[in-house]
Amino acid sequence: MTQPLIGVLGGMGPLATVDFLHKLIVALPARRDQEHVPTVVWNVPQIPDRQRALAGTGESPLPAMLAGIARLNAAGATRIVIPCNTAHLWFDALAAASSVPVIHIADATLAALARATSAVAPVGLIATRGALRAEIYQQRFVAGGIPFHTHTDEELDEFFTPGCYAIKNYELERGGKLLEHAGRLLVERGARRLVLACTEVPIGLTHIDSELLPISIDSTQALAEVCVAYWRQVSPQP
Amino acid sequence: MTQPLIGVLGGMGPLATVDFLHKLIVALPARRDQEHVPTVVWNVPQIPDRQRALAGTGESPLPAMLAGIARLNAAGATRIVIPCNTAHLWFDALAAASSVPVIHIADATLAALARATSAVAPVGLIATRGALRAEIYQQRFVAGGIPFHTHTDEELDEFFTPGCYAIKNYELERGGKLLEHAGRLLVERGARRLVLACTEVPIGLTHIDSELLPISIDSTQALAEVCVAYWRQVSPQP
Repeated sequence: MTQPLIGVLGGMGPLATVDFLHKLIVALPARRDQEHVPTVVWNVPQIPDRQRALAGTGESPLPAMLAGIARLNAAGATRIVIPCNTAHLWFDALAAASSVPVIHIADATLAALARATSAVAPVGLIATRGALRAEIYQQRFVAGGIPFHTHTDEELDEFFTPGCYAIKNYELERGGKLLEHAGRLLVERGARRLVLACTEVPIGLTHIDSELLPISIDSTQALAEVCVAYWRQVSPQP
Repeated sequence: MTQPLIGVLGGMGPLATVDFLHKLIVALPARRDQEHVPTVVWNVPQIPDRQRALAGTGESPLPAMLAGIARLNAAGATRIVIPCNTAHLWFDALAAASSVPVIHIADATLAALARATSAVAPVGLIATRGALRAEIYQQRFVAGGIPFHTHTDEELDEFFTPGCYAIKNYELERGGKLLEHAGRLLVERGARRLVLACTEVPIGLTHIDSELLPISIDSTQALAEVCVAYWRQVSPQP
């Protein structure tokens, strides 16, 4: 039998990859090392910047991401995850190139949102400009009849984008505050839940222990939970 | 030219692997994702327990570790590191099986100790019973003329070993306190520096923000620093 193994296409950014691997451990109450989810991680951050590529000011990250998918397949991965929402703009090409299923982070996150609340209430979507333009999340909200709010271009420029890059620069306090402010704007507009559809955001909000965390759905956490559910289903262990 | 790539033989335990990857990020003040050290991580914790194997109560972890080394070589690693001190009892066999150099964690840690202090003062060695019996660190202290203190069997049974397994169970507060107590015993015996030669220990001491941290040399951190130095030397980037 093929041994189950989660392939992680990481490095986008490296800190979000670490956050994902940490959440994978915490999501599985294990008594021994050996019970934890096995992963192989292609954590090579020399992938051209996703946001710059989408803005037309940088080269495409697709070839580097495809190389990573090929490495993970060669290493024996039985499922692949990508702890970066913006990278999912290239999801179709990546999934087509993989001989094993690639789990979509937005599907994982929508499932987590459904588990968190049965009430239909407006959500606030915190995501990169590229992810917003590609409507990765909005199309799922529309299909589910979920009302949502997103940031304006000005709010992205002033709060979200600098917050996101601050986390990448390991300025966690500054980044956390900028991202919390961005989140509050959506709450003021009527959002009752926040969907953290950028894997830098939970790192910042957690660092400042933000009051927004209890109403937040964390896409990194959601992806980890799907991996734990898969592992529990297929694990050869009791 | 071969692209530099750090192969990480992880999963011993998974949390120590995450801690290593996190320290690798923090050790390199990068302005962009793309400047960070690229890694491929074989993070498969289904490796038989190292301490039990050494105690004669469990199977050998060597075949599983050799399989990991082979995967990392196949994935294109140019250097390999193992963020687990006890695993280094099998270092010679692992290094012999690898076509690329495996960096020894004790060499990295001794180099960090030398950087931290030029004075010859007694160190306290915090390590598993297996690592102590194999004298991985003691032989280096003797060669360097460094006096050292280690735990008694009773202290290992009462404080160190339960502390180490508490960290593996994600009981960070309890584990941190047990490990801090173990460290204090060595300080009371005359140690002026503590060598944290088990990668679970810094996780526990950091969680409780232990007063022992300022006098501690962290083997995980030392390994990360060696990787950053390698990457800076060979990186194709400016």
